Amino acid sequence: MKTYIIFAHPNHNGLCYAAFEKARQGFTDAGHEVRVTDLYEERFDPLLFFDGEHLRRDLQFDEDTRIYRENILWAEHLVVIFPIWWGGMPAILKGFIDKVFAKGFAYDYTKTLPIGQLKGKTAWIINTHDTPSLYAKLFGVDYGKVLKRKVLAFCGIKTVCHTSMPSTRNSTIDQRRRWLDKIYRLASVIRGQRAMA
Amino acid sequence: MKTYIIFAHPNHNGLCYAAFEKARQGFTDAGHEVRVTDLYEERFDPLLFFDGEHLRRDLQFDEDTRIYRENILWAEHLVVIFPIWWGGMPAILKGFIDKVFAKGFAYDYTKTLPIGQLKGKTAWIINTHDTPSLYAKLFGVDYGKVLKRKVLAFCGIKTVCHTSMPSTRNSTIDQRRRWLDKIYRLASVIRGQRAMA
Repeated sequence: MKTYIIFAHPNHNGLCYAAFEKARQGFTDAGHEVRVTDLYEERFDPLLFFDGEHLRRDLQFDEDTRIYRENILWAEHLVVIFPIWWGGMPAILKGFIDKVFAKGFAYDYTKTLPIGQLKGKTAWIINTHDTPSLYAKLFGVDYGKVLKRKVLAFCGIKTVCHTSMPSTRNSTIDQRRRWLDKIYRLASVIRGQRAMA
Repeated sequence: MKTYIIFAHPNHNGLCYAAFEKARQGFTDAGHEVRVTDLYEERFDPLLFFDGEHLRRDLQFDEDTRIYRENILWAEHLVVIFPIWWGGMPAILKGFIDKVFAKGFAYDYTKTLPIGQLKGKTAWIINTHDTPSLYAKLFGVDYGKVLKRKVLAFCGIKTVCHTSMPSTRNSTIDQRRRWLDKIYRLASVIRGQRAMA
């Protein structure tokens, strides 16, 4: 299976990066082809700019983001790994969505209804955050829901797995090890077709 | 009343910018003191960076963002004007939140509970978006809710008004004029203490 991992955390010594490494290792060990984008490492510029002369509709042809569109088209399975900051994606990842998931590439319009252009692909969202699990489940806006429902589903991509590591700051070494083991196992067995716990 | 307007749209020829101008004019005409940050105009760098050497806890003292913290402290009323892209804030505004609303400045922790440090201030959120009004109300994730609930409320800031301009793309000139008139009027009468329609 062709897997494209998008990673968005500045610190390479934390739990989020460890999750990224475990996922990559899991896919590689299971014989999958893996491509990776570490947004901070690549110094991705997240600012979507358009005005009367630079049209938003031309985003789908933008040369600076071509490699990301090619990776998404190539992949059967996307893995998006990021910390929840203020309920949502870090700016660098939000900007990746704003710029790369362009109209004409990721979705388009029939007369009035939008239609996803990336159908058949699956996704796995992996998050760290500092909110207690129950609170995030009951009252959580957004905690990955925007990425899942507003972005991926809108483009035809089915999120088959959403792994959340709550109360990251206060988690024990044992808890972290269990999370990372689980991510490695999921990466090894995921087929992208079945919803997984 | 001291009002601080934060604006986050690249295009100075669209409805969102017109709303920004109307709000500014309304506050000025009503005799309020107004400060303004046009994030794109200032080429605000939205990337929050931290690692083992650059600590997140030092964000509250960051020199690059000091002016924004000072403006927020100065203001009695914040106005945040932005388009909804993919359900939420543009990356440049998300990065403003990530970097400026730092722990120790915007909120802090007692033993375990967070406590907002910006109590007593009020906010007005103004959005453009391309979703039909009813759909956004019923199924909308997030459409400004993250800013209102997860960010502003968390820091003790009460959102007294949320103005939404739905289906922007298909709106008529007349509709746009009504929205802009309403924003001007609201800016003229808003006192920050009462919830307004």
